[in-house]
Amino acid sequence: MQLLDKLQWRYATKAMDNQRAVPADKIERIVEAARLAPTSSGLQPFEVLVVTNPEVRARIQPVSWNQAQVTDCSHLLVFAAWDNYTAERINGMFDLVNDVRGFKNEGWEAYRQQLLATYPKRDAQVNFEHAARQAYIALGASVIAAAFEEVDSTPMEGFDPAAVDEILDLRARGLRSVVMLPLGYRKAEQDWLVDLPKVRRPREQFVTEVA
Amino acid sequence: MQLLDKLQWRYATKAMDNQRAVPADKIERIVEAARLAPTSSGLQPFEVLVVTNPEVRARIQPVSWNQAQVTDCSHLLVFAAWDNYTAERINGMFDLVNDVRGFKNEGWEAYRQQLLATYPKRDAQVNFEHAARQAYIALGASVIAAAFEEVDSTPMEGFDPAAVDEILDLRARGLRSVVMLPLGYRKAEQDWLVDLPKVRRPREQFVTEVA
Repeated sequence: MQLLDKLQWRYATKAMDNQRAVPADKIERIVEAARLAPTSSGLQPFEVLVVTNPEVRARIQPVSWNQAQVTDCSHLLVFAAWDNYTAERINGMFDLVNDVRGFKNEGWEAYRQQLLATYPKRDAQVNFEHAARQAYIALGASVIAAAFEEVDSTPMEGFDPAAVDEILDLRARGLRSVVMLPLGYRKAEQDWLVDLPKVRRPREQFVTEVA
Repeated sequence: MQLLDKLQWRYATKAMDNQRAVPADKIERIVEAARLAPTSSGLQPFEVLVVTNPEVRARIQPVSWNQAQVTDCSHLLVFAAWDNYTAERINGMFDLVNDVRGFKNEGWEAYRQQLLATYPKRDAQVNFEHAARQAYIALGASVIAAAFEEVDSTPMEGFDPAAVDEILDLRARGLRSVVMLPLGYRKAEQDWLVDLPKVRRPREQFVTEVA
């Protein structure tokens, strides 16, 4: 399967060429993969920021362990999850579904009421953690999409989320940064990881068959 | 890009044909996509259970809101995250990397010490939540892999994790179920969702450009 070849090709790129920019159409498709990714109840409880501004990236870098990819990439994706589930957000998504499909479905409306009765009253941190998990599905989709575009990427958790939230003014929008994905092109001769074999636990330590 | 077509093709299949089984080679590649998915520090802090046993699935179904896919699918993937990060688990992965690559790297060893000094002492729930997020990256990879195999799947959070943990005896292995993925083939004539349009927030409500 072609997908497995792409997963083998990709690696967490350590050195990116700051002289090469990813074309806009490739970025669009990588972001589109995140937008199309499945999420719990279809709520899509996150947004994606595409940061190209050099000054903003220069401010993010020191709160990201000074990782060079933050400024050497051409596009820095920031996945920011909803800080909480609110009735407004849940209704927004259910209403959109009804608008697009052109009808109301009784089962779907009952499901809306079920979410409205449970999610908003839960602890905000529990809701945020749930939203963050969904963002990671989309992260996976974008990593794979990048590989299909022969674009290098580096999934990145090594940053201070509160500091990034402040730089991008996320909390005012009810968002919290959870993971970043610099997109660019490898600078192979300066990348210690590029030629090292990918290491994964062997199948027998990863999979259990319950047959 | 072919990946976007696959993301458009897939949907959270509601009715599966319990007379059709997914061939073993397709299952292997779908699981392999999860195994190859990127994870934080490469720790792969989760395992995948492939449940085919009908009696086990019949026990899982009532603790999964009686969703029919649990028993109508041919293979039920259960993604189970590490309940905690321990020194043994961290060392296991760093040692494996050294074994496969055939050398020790100073920077890599310093990074090991950094994780050992921070992860095991953190609250177990914080570590579990972090591990769970990584499992969702792999979930995304398996959903996409299934689409490439023209296999239907249903990402499923609607179950009682503690009950599933007990049925599969996961806690004794230091694992906690986080998400399931039934794999099978749609029974289109009984699936209310199959012909409805996929709904996602429009790009302008999903993406912010910081240029």
